[in-house]
Amino acid sequence: MTKAQALVLERQHELKLREIDLPMDVGPGMVKIKIHTVGVCGSDVHYYTHGRIGPFVVNAPMVLGHEAAGTVVEVGQGVTHLKVGDRVCMEPGIPDPNSRASRLGMYNVDPAVTFWATPPIHGVLTPYVVHPANYTFKLPDNVSFAEGAMVEPFAVGMQAATKARITPGDTAVVLGAGPIGTMVAIAALAGGCARAIVADLAQPKLDIAARYQGVIPVNIREKNIVSEVKRLTDDWGADIVFECSGSPKAWETIMDLPRPGGTIVVVGLPVEPAAFDIATASTKEIRIETVFRYAHQYDRAIALFASGRVDLKPLISETFAFEDSVAAFDRAVEARPSDVKLQIRMPD
Amino acid sequence: MTKAQALVLERQHELKLREIDLPMDVGPGMVKIKIHTVGVCGSDVHYYTHGRIGPFVVNAPMVLGHEAAGTVVEVGQGVTHLKVGDRVCMEPGIPDPNSRASRLGMYNVDPAVTFWATPPIHGVLTPYVVHPANYTFKLPDNVSFAEGAMVEPFAVGMQAATKARITPGDTAVVLGAGPIGTMVAIAALAGGCARAIVADLAQPKLDIAARYQGVIPVNIREKNIVSEVKRLTDDWGADIVFECSGSPKAWETIMDLPRPGGTIVVVGLPVEPAAFDIATASTKEIRIETVFRYAHQYDRAIALFASGRVDLKPLISETFAFEDSVAAFDRAVEARPSDVKLQIRMPD
Amino acid sequence: MTKAQALVLERQHELKLREIDLPMDVGPGMVKIKIHTVGVCGSDVHYYTHGRIGPFVVNAPMVLGHEAAGTVVEVGQGVTHLKVGDRVCMEPGIPDPNSRASRLGMYNVDPAVTFWATPPIHGVLTPYVVHPANYTFKLPDNVSFAEGAMVEPFAVGMQAATKARITPGDTAVVLGAGPIGTMVAIAALAGGCARAIVADLAQPKLDIAARYQGVIPVNIREKNIVSEVKRLTDDWGADIVFECSGSPKAWETIMDLPRPGGTIVVVGLPVEPAAFDIATASTKEIRIETVFRYAHQYDRAIALFASGRVDLKPLISETFAFEDSVAAFDRAVEARPSDVKLQIRMPD
Amino acid sequence: MTKAQALVLERQHELKLREIDLPMDVGPGMVKIKIHTVGVCGSDVHYYTHGRIGPFVVNAPMVLGHEAAGTVVEVGQGVTHLKVGDRVCMEPGIPDPNSRASRLGMYNVDPAVTFWATPPIHGVLTPYVVHPANYTFKLPDNVSFAEGAMVEPFAVGMQAATKARITPGDTAVVLGAGPIGTMVAIAALAGGCARAIVADLAQPKLDIAARYQGVIPVNIREKNIVSEVKRLTDDWGADIVFECSGSPKAWETIMDLPRPGGTIVVVGLPVEPAAFDIATASTKEIRIETVFRYAHQYDRAIALFASGRVDLKPLISETFAFEDSVAAFDRAVEARPSDVKLQIRMPD
Repeated sequence: MTKAQALVLERQHELKLREIDLPMDVGPGMVKIKIHTVGVCGSDVHYYTHGRIGPFVVNAPMVLGHEAAGTVVEVGQGVTHLKVGDRVCMEPGIPDPNSRASRLGMYNVDPAVTFWATPPIHGVLTPYVVHPANYTFKLPDNVSFAEGAMVEPFAVGMQAATKARITPGDTAVVLGAGPIGTMVAIAALAGGCARAIVADLAQPKLDIAARYQGVIPVNIREKNIVSEVKRLTDDWGADIVFECSGSPKAWETIMDLPRPGGTIVVVGLPVEPAAFDIATASTKEIRIETVFRYAHQYDRAIALFASGRVDLKPLISETFAFEDSVAAFDRAVEARPSDVKLQIRMPD
Repeated sequence: MTKAQALVLERQHELKLREIDLPMDVGPGMVKIKIHTVGVCGSDVHYYTHGRIGPFVVNAPMVLGHEAAGTVVEVGQGVTHLKVGDRVCMEPGIPDPNSRASRLGMYNVDPAVTFWATPPIHGVLTPYVVHPANYTFKLPDNVSFAEGAMVEPFAVGMQAATKARITPGDTAVVLGAGPIGTMVAIAALAGGCARAIVADLAQPKLDIAARYQGVIPVNIREKNIVSEVKRLTDDWGADIVFECSGSPKAWETIMDLPRPGGTIVVVGLPVEPAAFDIATASTKEIRIETVFRYAHQYDRAIALFASGRVDLKPLISETFAFEDSVAAFDRAVEARPSDVKLQIRMPD
Repeated sequence: MTKAQALVLERQHELKLREIDLPMDVGPGMVKIKIHTVGVCGSDVHYYTHGRIGPFVVNAPMVLGHEAAGTVVEVGQGVTHLKVGDRVCMEPGIPDPNSRASRLGMYNVDPAVTFWATPPIHGVLTPYVVHPANYTFKLPDNVSFAEGAMVEPFAVGMQAATKARITPGDTAVVLGAGPIGTMVAIAALAGGCARAIVADLAQPKLDIAARYQGVIPVNIREKNIVSEVKRLTDDWGADIVFECSGSPKAWETIMDLPRPGGTIVVVGLPVEPAAFDIATASTKEIRIETVFRYAHQYDRAIALFASGRVDLKPLISETFAFEDSVAAFDRAVEARPSDVKLQIRMPD
Repeated sequence: MTKAQALVLERQHELKLREIDLPMDVGPGMVKIKIHTVGVCGSDVHYYTHGRIGPFVVNAPMVLGHEAAGTVVEVGQGVTHLKVGDRVCMEPGIPDPNSRASRLGMYNVDPAVTFWATPPIHGVLTPYVVHPANYTFKLPDNVSFAEGAMVEPFAVGMQAATKARITPGDTAVVLGAGPIGTMVAIAALAGGCARAIVADLAQPKLDIAARYQGVIPVNIREKNIVSEVKRLTDDWGADIVFECSGSPKAWETIMDLPRPGGTIVVVGLPVEPAAFDIATASTKEIRIETVFRYAHQYDRAIALFASGRVDLKPLISETFAFEDSVAAFDRAVEARPSDVKLQIRMPD
């Protein structure tokens, strides 16, 4: 264990930048990374404001942060694809490679996964971290650290786009233009959709999404989303609907949105079980997919950034210094509609 | 129009064997069939007892029956794959071949489909019917008329098995051992499952299902289905869960049944929207498929009957003469747990 | 029959602009279209230079042209989705909607398809054509006639991209940078690939393809494509390889390009059967897909043009007046490497 | 290392039952198994007669045998799903769980796999073996050791059936009725096919396959397989063709067998690259799948045996005592057409 400065969530509502003991042993297959940039995620903020997410409760001080990029400073035995000096980003979830789910290629649904900043596992708002090389990905020269720290949230969008099984030229609907909805819309377009009809109540969020070519914003304060989708699809319906609002209300009419044979991908999680209209779903033979984090998406996301087909830089709303981390979180708590992603820059 | 004897549902609760005018013109692409055997379906019975199914209301006298087999007696212009004397069975739904859904190969979700014995369309409990040749299928010599009349309900099971995208050797759970649940279990096994864990409250239904190799019956009066599935799958869960009970109660725990990455196929329709546990579904990345009748299943079902890989003869509980049709329906209303399929034999 | 001016291929090597009798009866379900723009396709040119393509032989004078856009001038009975004045483009292949393949949703592999400018069917280098409304597609206001006439060749790329079953962020290799290879590369990128490594011998063709973001050109006079793909994929291989060269030589090493579990999509057709290395393919469990024209791609292609996610205008190398049609074809015969698409503009 | 009696291939043509040093250390995650039954596989025999298979050359004495079942006698640290006394069968290939292919769930195409009785790895015709618990599978009480030793060859059939993506009720063609063709036919039927048209020159092989319900044998000395498939499918073609003959001649006409949109699964490997008719394949949009051994099939195969849906006992032609191992191999070299599987029983 080594003493390190870190942003520590002591308990609900109490964040402190202080020293804490962290493991820094670089075992076989591991790499040590000097952290450069860390994004502030809604789940980090939720632990701060609520002290828990479902069954995961902050019972002991926990370092926050799981969207990170940095530079390899030490390489463990047997690591061949990374070397000191490589600029990298890291998957925050570490599965058991021998679990049944992992062996089937679905390591994200392995119940044994440990995940940064999910109690009791520490996150990475701290200068260094030791991580398995297999879940550490080299950034090409033309992908910045700030973008590298965006790979994690974008991977959620990629997982949704992958599960959707997009046919090139599909029309998507995205319900909710928060950070996740926006990532999903961008991933859906990068993943083959011709257009993403993005619905939200907050115009500033829609304005940000609408900067991306193919996004058709619909302010549902002003327009009925079912009518708009019908109008835009000649009464046929959308090929794919991504539910990213997490609102049970969205489930009341969601079955009116897809075309016959269409798909719903559930990304937002309502707190309570949501009632869904099975009869209407069946009449159209709707398929419903659910997603949990992501698997095998980092290299794909990085490839899209590197080729220029996806540019998330416009979504970085503001960057804070590490010493202003608490301020960054307090700004995130404000939830300004024009904020998509706040990032924290670690000291050099 | 031609006068013909038919089993007419005059209105809710009132069934009569009487003459009625039916169209008998054999246009191009059509064939005329002498009906031999007609199965009694739950939906026929439901119109009898309730006078409606959802939006479909019996507002005028309607001939019942849609599970039928018979012999071609006349062939319209342009029909090449059928000739007089061919023994056949018929799909009861006729889509618009030029609709968008039909052109995509999903004619079952074409909103323009007309379907036998679905108001205001007459069914086929009458000696003759004229039908499109494209939805009329030749029976091999070793498939009887009685089996031919079973193709329709079995096609529902086939559609569910197809949508499930079974991997050979999968473990299925089938909730509900009524006629549809039993068809689904048989289709799932024929379609590649190694075993079908069939759950019901009624032991006589389970006993019938258990005659089929690969069925593992679970009486849920005595055993908890979640525990049984865990026990039978080493705590992993089922690959596929077919919900055939239509009970909202089934939805309360259904997400505990599939394995990570597993599938739920919804066959039974609860009357009210069913609440489903999205959080648990997401944690396992469960996929949910819905089915509506069937498409492209008749030739496949017939092939399974002809090769001997599926034998539904044990499910035919009793055969009534056409003149006893009302008695057949009254017996169906009784809903004896040991009755799977009642059939009506038309006069020679 | 009506007399109309048309570009007629009298026989191999002999093209003439002259009057010819063409059917102009607008039956039910049909529309009459005033042609605006027609693209010159390699197959049109091949009939001109060789008088045949495989089993299709020009035995009688035939109007050329099958990549067309225009304006609806008359609407047949029962047509509801089009009206006079609509700007449209047309699928050149007309299947039998009642064939087995069409009913399954694969109308392109229906052996009964008739196809413009495929002997003995006339093409559309003539002022008017009558066509089934179901295969006529409305162009949005922001899609020009010139782009509308590009939908047909792009649909070939879309079919290849669809059959590839792209996972978002995939790396593609495209062998051959001719018009089809370029269309395939653009469709693959629009359909979800992060990058398309495009290989050809002709630098001008590569330069044109390289204008599209995500294209990585490889001149195989200078570089070995297998080594380049290994270098660009960290020795893993490409997710998808699109064979668009039609060269038997490409098949000698093609199995070295895909990653384990990767896919080859065959678009180019070698004249002779091509030998393929089954042992290497099997070791990696390579999947091979083949494509034939396209099905259900027009609306998707148009949606990609309309949203701005695909812009094919840079591929239109030159536009000829109808009266210079023969010159247009002679220019196409030259096969200048910098020419991608030549178009012919019909008189107003 | 421990001295053990084993069937050792000293070099091409020279087999000896003698003592050899084998590793018997039961490390963490490993189990030690007392071998009960070992099947004789064509590849074992090929090493005996040819001294090599492609790039794999017998340069040093090697123990043969890789189709094995036995009883766990010792359990390494961390093993939870197996205990001493469990009856088991074992996958002969051990991948690197951290390889890219393994992490994606395709461990069979991991180039780092080591495989029993593939030079220089020893096989298991010896009383004991130490093996990773993750690749060791418990046999249910109603599955015998003899059947357990059939899981390996049947897994090859299961992999082919899985890759085929069978739709329930499909019609399959299987070219070649050797042991692998027979396994593939049985797996295809268990995996959802209604019928498997099995083609071979040797009537005794066809007679054995024909014992399985759904198999339609075609002796290609007497009948043309293309005509037979057309006749049996009303000129439509087969949904799936499994090429199990490994004969280049099969490739000459194979494209005439599938229906439009059908699939070819390549199981047999011709020694030379095989020429295939791309033009015909494309006209029908045929998909070609290749297979390499198997992944994730053992538990599925065992489930099919345990439920009674697959019974391979009729394929066990004769069982030899361990001391008669050389005689067993010499009998296998004879290649009697009525022999499907020879097995060797280890001493108690």
